[in-house]
Amino acid sequence: MSGRVGVWLVGARGSVATSVVCGAAALRAGLAPPVGCVSELPDVAVARLPAYADLVFGGHDVTGCPLDKRAEQLAAGGVLPRSVLAGVGAELAAAEAEIRAGYDGAAGTSQRVAAEALAADLRSFADRHALRRLVVVNLASTEPRRDPHPATGSLAELETALDGGDPVLPPSALYAYAALTAGYPFVDFTPSAAVGSAALAELAVARGLPWAGNDGKTGETLVKAALAPMFADRALRVRSWAGTNLLGGGDGANLADPAAAATKLASKGQVLSTVLGESLVEPLHIDYVPDLGDWKTAWDHISFEGFLGVRMSLQFTWQGCDSALAAPLVLDLARLAVRAHEVGEVGPVGAFGFFFKDPAGTAEHRLAAQYEALRSWAARAGELP
Amino acid sequence: MSGRVGVWLVGARGSVATSVVCGAAALRAGLAPPVGCVSELPDVAVARLPAYADLVFGGHDVTGCPLDKRAEQLAAGGVLPRSVLAGVGAELAAAEAEIRAGYDGAAGTSQRVAAEALAADLRSFADRHALRRLVVVNLASTEPRRDPHPATGSLAELETALDGGDPVLPPSALYAYAALTAGYPFVDFTPSAAVGSAALAELAVARGLPWAGNDGKTGETLVKAALAPMFADRALRVRSWAGTNLLGGGDGANLADPAAAATKLASKGQVLSTVLGESLVEPLHIDYVPDLGDWKTAWDHISFEGFLGVRMSLQFTWQGCDSALAAPLVLDLARLAVRAHEVGEVGPVGAFGFFFKDPAGTAEHRLAAQYEALRSWAARAGELP
Amino acid sequence: MSGRVGVWLVGARGSVATSVVCGAAALRAGLAPPVGCVSELPDVAVARLPAYADLVFGGHDVTGCPLDKRAEQLAAGGVLPRSVLAGVGAELAAAEAEIRAGYDGAAGTSQRVAAEALAADLRSFADRHALRRLVVVNLASTEPRRDPHPATGSLAELETALDGGDPVLPPSALYAYAALTAGYPFVDFTPSAAVGSAALAELAVARGLPWAGNDGKTGETLVKAALAPMFADRALRVRSWAGTNLLGGGDGANLADPAAAATKLASKGQVLSTVLGESLVEPLHIDYVPDLGDWKTAWDHISFEGFLGVRMSLQFTWQGCDSALAAPLVLDLARLAVRAHEVGEVGPVGAFGFFFKDPAGTAEHRLAAQYEALRSWAARAGELP
Amino acid sequence: MSGRVGVWLVGARGSVATSVVCGAAALRAGLAPPVGCVSELPDVAVARLPAYADLVFGGHDVTGCPLDKRAEQLAAGGVLPRSVLAGVGAELAAAEAEIRAGYDGAAGTSQRVAAEALAADLRSFADRHALRRLVVVNLASTEPRRDPHPATGSLAELETALDGGDPVLPPSALYAYAALTAGYPFVDFTPSAAVGSAALAELAVARGLPWAGNDGKTGETLVKAALAPMFADRALRVRSWAGTNLLGGGDGANLADPAAAATKLASKGQVLSTVLGESLVEPLHIDYVPDLGDWKTAWDHISFEGFLGVRMSLQFTWQGCDSALAAPLVLDLARLAVRAHEVGEVGPVGAFGFFFKDPAGTAEHRLAAQYEALRSWAARAGELP
Repeated sequence: MSGRVGVWLVGARGSVATSVVCGAAALRAGLAPPVGCVSELPDVAVARLPAYADLVFGGHDVTGCPLDKRAEQLAAGGVLPRSVLAGVGAELAAAEAEIRAGYDGAAGTSQRVAAEALAADLRSFADRHALRRLVVVNLASTEPRRDPHPATGSLAELETALDGGDPVLPPSALYAYAALTAGYPFVDFTPSAAVGSAALAELAVARGLPWAGNDGKTGETLVKAALAPMFADRALRVRSWAGTNLLGGGDGANLADPAAAATKLASKGQVLSTVLGESLVEPLHIDYVPDLGDWKTAWDHISFEGFLGVRMSLQFTWQGCDSALAAPLVLDLARLAVRAHEVGEVGPVGAFGFFFKDPAGTAEHRLAAQYEALRSWAARAGELP
Repeated sequence: MSGRVGVWLVGARGSVATSVVCGAAALRAGLAPPVGCVSELPDVAVARLPAYADLVFGGHDVTGCPLDKRAEQLAAGGVLPRSVLAGVGAELAAAEAEIRAGYDGAAGTSQRVAAEALAADLRSFADRHALRRLVVVNLASTEPRRDPHPATGSLAELETALDGGDPVLPPSALYAYAALTAGYPFVDFTPSAAVGSAALAELAVARGLPWAGNDGKTGETLVKAALAPMFADRALRVRSWAGTNLLGGGDGANLADPAAAATKLASKGQVLSTVLGESLVEPLHIDYVPDLGDWKTAWDHISFEGFLGVRMSLQFTWQGCDSALAAPLVLDLARLAVRAHEVGEVGPVGAFGFFFKDPAGTAEHRLAAQYEALRSWAARAGELP
Repeated sequence: MSGRVGVWLVGARGSVATSVVCGAAALRAGLAPPVGCVSELPDVAVARLPAYADLVFGGHDVTGCPLDKRAEQLAAGGVLPRSVLAGVGAELAAAEAEIRAGYDGAAGTSQRVAAEALAADLRSFADRHALRRLVVVNLASTEPRRDPHPATGSLAELETALDGGDPVLPPSALYAYAALTAGYPFVDFTPSAAVGSAALAELAVARGLPWAGNDGKTGETLVKAALAPMFADRALRVRSWAGTNLLGGGDGANLADPAAAATKLASKGQVLSTVLGESLVEPLHIDYVPDLGDWKTAWDHISFEGFLGVRMSLQFTWQGCDSALAAPLVLDLARLAVRAHEVGEVGPVGAFGFFFKDPAGTAEHRLAAQYEALRSWAARAGELP
Repeated sequence: MSGRVGVWLVGARGSVATSVVCGAAALRAGLAPPVGCVSELPDVAVARLPAYADLVFGGHDVTGCPLDKRAEQLAAGGVLPRSVLAGVGAELAAAEAEIRAGYDGAAGTSQRVAAEALAADLRSFADRHALRRLVVVNLASTEPRRDPHPATGSLAELETALDGGDPVLPPSALYAYAALTAGYPFVDFTPSAAVGSAALAELAVARGLPWAGNDGKTGETLVKAALAPMFADRALRVRSWAGTNLLGGGDGANLADPAAAATKLASKGQVLSTVLGESLVEPLHIDYVPDLGDWKTAWDHISFEGFLGVRMSLQFTWQGCDSALAAPLVLDLARLAVRAHEVGEVGPVGAFGFFFKDPAGTAEHRLAAQYEALRSWAARAGELP
């Protein structure tokens, strides 16, 4: 299956997107081994995914910081080796040339018009590069949590509302609407609304498109998804699971807004209640600590009860670099979503739940079971043409 | 499948054995819910296991501390609730009456004679209680590591050596020899030699008996078995995994002997090299810290590499009570081994690897996969008469 | 200096007060060594403090749970050894007999009348036991933070307002007013208002009485006071100091109220800004985690910068039992406050800042310097009659 | 007090020495603020210390890696900012030109001859730069622990043995002998023997020279020295204090040798037994974990007993960069030792114990008290001409 494949990043000037473009270039050039790349594991690679060398990047963003400057910041912060930075200038410039102004929700523009403009950007990108396939991945900042507009209850209502000029969709959902309308699969790597409404889900089915989300599982929640089943399978009764997340960087600044943090916390809270039950005491904080830069530290304290009521505890401290953790997963999901489109998947692909905090299309939150579902999917996909 | 079932504990006066006897009584009397009891999870209970109410306890030991005194110590140390202690006096006394002098390897007694005496104790116990089944579980202190005697290379050589009066077997293996010879399945909950030689494995097959081992996976290694696959499945490259174990109590005192610690460390080291590969730097310490009593604290530091070589880390601190963690698993294994015997399993039961640090009969060390193997086994066993 | 000395506890039925009464009895009877008792260190004992055997306990409370029942709860929670509990029944009963109904701020009673009733309780207690000295210690739950009433700006204004029937004082301050009016020194072991207004401070001076506060420094803040000077004296630049406190028990339940938590957090935040400067990022949380019972876990993450801008970190996890940490300090402070009264101290005793999160009468927050101030004070007091 | 001052580094090509040279240049050029520089705190700067701009660097080493290459490695490892590296080329070259071949203990050379050659290097350096003062600082790798040679019992015996051609001194002591003989103060920043024998101490007195040591207190032991007095001053009984140190880099590789580790562990163990008493259980490990590079992680677990025997714990994890922590202290000690020489100090300067794990000339191990001693010394020195 050769031919160029487009990866369109919403939030194309952010740390994760910049790491994605640099990383793909580094992998293509053999400057780095595919560490962190799930799709390169034999279990998953068997699915016959597009090659890194075939990926072409573009995207939307509402800020103006050029990719090369952002890449320089990442190198200064220890996220990007200078040896990689030195070798990926051409690819950064190429991606830079394909970044278009995003939708910022400013008053004055109707969402119908805005969506058509976004879709036109996608189609134009596909034409310009003669792309065999195109996938849109949302990497934009987490949106404040808000109640969905009533018009998102069905596709018909949504179309009527858009025709009427109402601003019914949050930006993430408008991007998803544009992508699906234009005929491209969509991946939501954030906890924002995106495809998470009846109307959008209906649209994906109507167009015969797969989608995946929500919220990339890169750090604390990843560890939770690995550890919670241990307690469940050992019949240990977890009484409380407290978590504190210290974030620097842009993500931390955005999540210092309590409304955005609420969206994130809701997403992060899924795994424990699903695997361990609802009665858990589960305090969870996100703090903005600017001096941590691109790094994140999470401390979790788990108090559990064993045989005859004996109380015990487990604590962990995770110190990770979110961009370095997210970027290879974005590449994985782009490749997998393209393949899902090829093999005819429609609607949310539950088998991709391994990558998400709040997986669409599945109720499975146990990490090993999610991996097994991905492995099975890849094996089946590998047998298709 | 009714009728009484014997559980014979080698090391019957230790903390774990005492917790086993008290715990079984508490469960039977409804004094405590079956927290920590894997065999009570619906996935596993389906196997049609013997009821707690049908279990009868006895055992060997080389020390003289009565069970009620040991139970009082456990209560003082916070391992056993006083409400349980108050309700299990009769069961402790019954088990006390069934403890026989164990094999201490003293010079002067031939191992052939000693094995026959041990086997006679088992048969007499079975007769006295009209037991439908009997299982022997090794809970004795970890033995020093030593090279196996050449005569353990085959059953024929072993029998010849025993006839010749050579002390060829370490105590754990002599107990296993006695159990298998007498026709009873054997569970090794320690890292000692036990059935881990060609001769003993051959004996189990010759007698058509199942066995399981080695070394109950109760704390740090349990967490390792849950976390290591997370790194593997995410294609993250673990560079070092350092561990420190602080142990009080009898286990700590025994493991303060470097030779015994070597046995334990070898057992604990299996999971990481199997799941993550051999190139890992893996310093691992066991320290005796008497003031921790029955409690154990383990700290692990995992340094790993992500996308483009970025270094990250995960630390965890486990604070557990070994007796409270081990006792329900001993009950699980006793019930499962009895059922394995009933359904005709012969040799090491790999499906019980979920319980062990160094599982016999399987190369699987990933915790979730081990649980799945156990679940499958239980489902199959449940369909048998 | 012989003769009986009264210790009047506000919040006399709480965990700390119960531990104080039991602990004093245990020390008197030789059931336990004076571990945790600062006033028994030779440096401090030199001050010629009242003997434990001379202390007589009473107090106010607004709840009705009897002391023996509370002591039983503490024993069940592992805070009080059963061997101590068995030996202190008489002392618990004696203290129980001296507990009077406290002030609950209920509408309908004028604060003037309430204060006179509280003072009468104190005088009656002193008479009944022919007390040589009496000290009042506030151990009641943390009050919600609120702006001080304007009438607390001076003693004259306060007296006028009380005469006028206005409810101008929060309960902690009414207790302090009653104690000082009756001629007894006051210790505030909580972060509540108490003597922390110009009017009350003026009253203490007017009556020639010493007082001490606020908020006993028992756990996380104690460690902060020991560690912050290390960074300052090594010229290391602390960039952020994040803290999470998980509390069970009554303290946790009370602090689950954001208004009460605000009072506590303000008190806890003093040490870092004083020792390390104001520019620190300092997120701090208190979470109520009921299953922790009388125990508290705090995790702090300190990010600091060294030579040439290199970023480093220190984390600590404190796992303490608040009652066991607070009780001996309450006894220390009672003994020291009595001695301060004897030697003629008037106003806030800055030399007792070692015991407090938010010390009155001193700006010193460095733990070692606070100890040195206490040591000097004790040496001087020891030379007085 | 103007004029150039020499700083002669034994182990001049190591990470710490390279950081010292780069850091001094950066401070001089205003490329970095003096973070981590104790001697720049007003309390200490009052002593009238030589300016950074007046320091001239040279040294001995037995390896050949040029300073600029080592500095590049430090930059790649995140220890040295590239902005600093870019600005200190001239200073690195100047120091490089003043590095001479060190003493490697090779057979064939008499120690008498070797010492004279080392001393000649020092005198020649002092002449060449018209140095007002010169100080020698030992930064070489930790030596294996060994029993001192009997001839180090007095200076007379030592001189006789050296005349006789016996290899009586370990390298660190030969460097110290050469420095003191040549009339220069000596600082031992390692746990090696150096001045730690009666003979060398006598030599320092005979020449009227100050010296300081041993073993820079940069990480885990620094935290211990801050925390141990907290327990002592609160009368809390520490029962065990377990520590694990994970080291990468050259230091880790050297300490992977058990004999060298023994030297280090003996030095690290001083503070706790001094402050908390001898009965402590104190397991302590050093592990070589190459992937940590220049970074070090230490985990300490402290188990302590409070009022009425309640057991509690404190854990900490220190993640530091040893070179960044050590380099400013080396500059501090060089400046302070020069000033000590000026003001006529002779023998070990106990007031510099703040900087050392195993301080010579004082029994004080409590960090705050050590800082107070340094502050007092600086105040006195500041009043001298």
